[in-house]
Amino acid sequence: MSDIYEMMSTLRAVRRLKVDPIPRDVLETVLQAACWAPTGGNMQPWRVIVVSSPDRKQALADIYRPAWYKYAKGYDARLDALPTAEREKGQRARSAGDYLADHLHEAPAILMFIADPKQMAITDAKLDRISMVGGGSVYTAVQNAMLAARTEGLGCTLTTLHCLEEDKVKTALDIPNDWATLALVPLGYPVGSGHGSITRQSPEVLAFDDAFGVEWS
Amino acid sequence: MSDIYEMMSTLRAVRRLKVDPIPRDVLETVLQAACWAPTGGNMQPWRVIVVSSPDRKQALADIYRPAWYKYAKGYDARLDALPTAEREKGQRARSAGDYLADHLHEAPAILMFIADPKQMAITDAKLDRISMVGGGSVYTAVQNAMLAARTEGLGCTLTTLHCLEEDKVKTALDIPNDWATLALVPLGYPVGSGHGSITRQSPEVLAFDDAFGVEWS
Repeated sequence: MSDIYEMMSTLRAVRRLKVDPIPRDVLETVLQAACWAPTGGNMQPWRVIVVSSPDRKQALADIYRPAWYKYAKGYDARLDALPTAEREKGQRARSAGDYLADHLHEAPAILMFIADPKQMAITDAKLDRISMVGGGSVYTAVQNAMLAARTEGLGCTLTTLHCLEEDKVKTALDIPNDWATLALVPLGYPVGSGHGSITRQSPEVLAFDDAFGVEWS
Repeated sequence: MSDIYEMMSTLRAVRRLKVDPIPRDVLETVLQAACWAPTGGNMQPWRVIVVSSPDRKQALADIYRPAWYKYAKGYDARLDALPTAEREKGQRARSAGDYLADHLHEAPAILMFIADPKQMAITDAKLDRISMVGGGSVYTAVQNAMLAARTEGLGCTLTTLHCLEEDKVKTALDIPNDWATLALVPLGYPVGSGHGSITRQSPEVLAFDDAFGVEWS
């Protein structure tokens, strides 16, 4: 087994991060991994802001925290409807989410991935459904960055709640108005065991054989 | 250097694929890698259709080919405006794109990644710009699949042109109307050397230090 599969299969959401700084060369490795990702027409229409000053981290935390607790209310309502085992699992995730929201400003670095729609050819822009294809030239880079973070022993998780207050995020990080914000990834060494086992559906559930609905087995 | 970085840094778009079949266990590895990817709320709202029958592959090729040649016209116009070295590089990419369009039905497998917007909490859905966040729960899986393909010696490339004719794609693969199509990834062993060196901007260009526009160095 190549260690690439070890990294993929243990890349869990790590929301409890130490305040310890990340060495510059380790950060550079994570950023380099992001840069290697493929993008449409090799345009690389994304940028990543490595937020590390106390003031800017606090500004992001002040935006993220109320967004999280607002979201968590609906989350709790859904948890109440679940069987005990799943509810307890959900409550642990809720608790880790609370921790992240309460401590975001303490993460040594917060990666903010942004993109410029003007540099993209978004093929589903005119369809009669919500567009998603723009993400194809950004989340490839985010996934590379997270796999590199995991490889370097850093905890991380992909969050998008900040989009609910995107204008405030743009103000906090001097992002031009015509750019979009796509992912907020807190980065730091894990408080606990960090990365490890994950719960995912298998190819038998997520893959189809030749046409929609035909079981892959 | 962990081999994960070797895989990331040599994952180039491979558009010339052999007709040789892909062993089932190799395909399974690629699908498993996709399944490991993180998604919002761990909902895994995506599916992948492994298209391998001659009829369905031909149907996709019949949709893709005219879309490519229509797109290529605009591509040529942009190439004409470039300096010689870049123009020649662009012409090689155009030629590889032509090959893919002409031979898509011969690829041993075509992965079609789809997603159900109803299973997603898309945080940028109501913003006054094109939405992209839905892709955050799909392209992480696509990137994992492509990294696994590269690890297994398979060529691949992420394409989205098929979205221009999404209705036809849905008909060809029995995809329900309320699902979205996000990526068409042809998969097969490379005709030539396959994966190898890539041209990408560096972190000095793509990363910012603490705020937009502040050089990372």
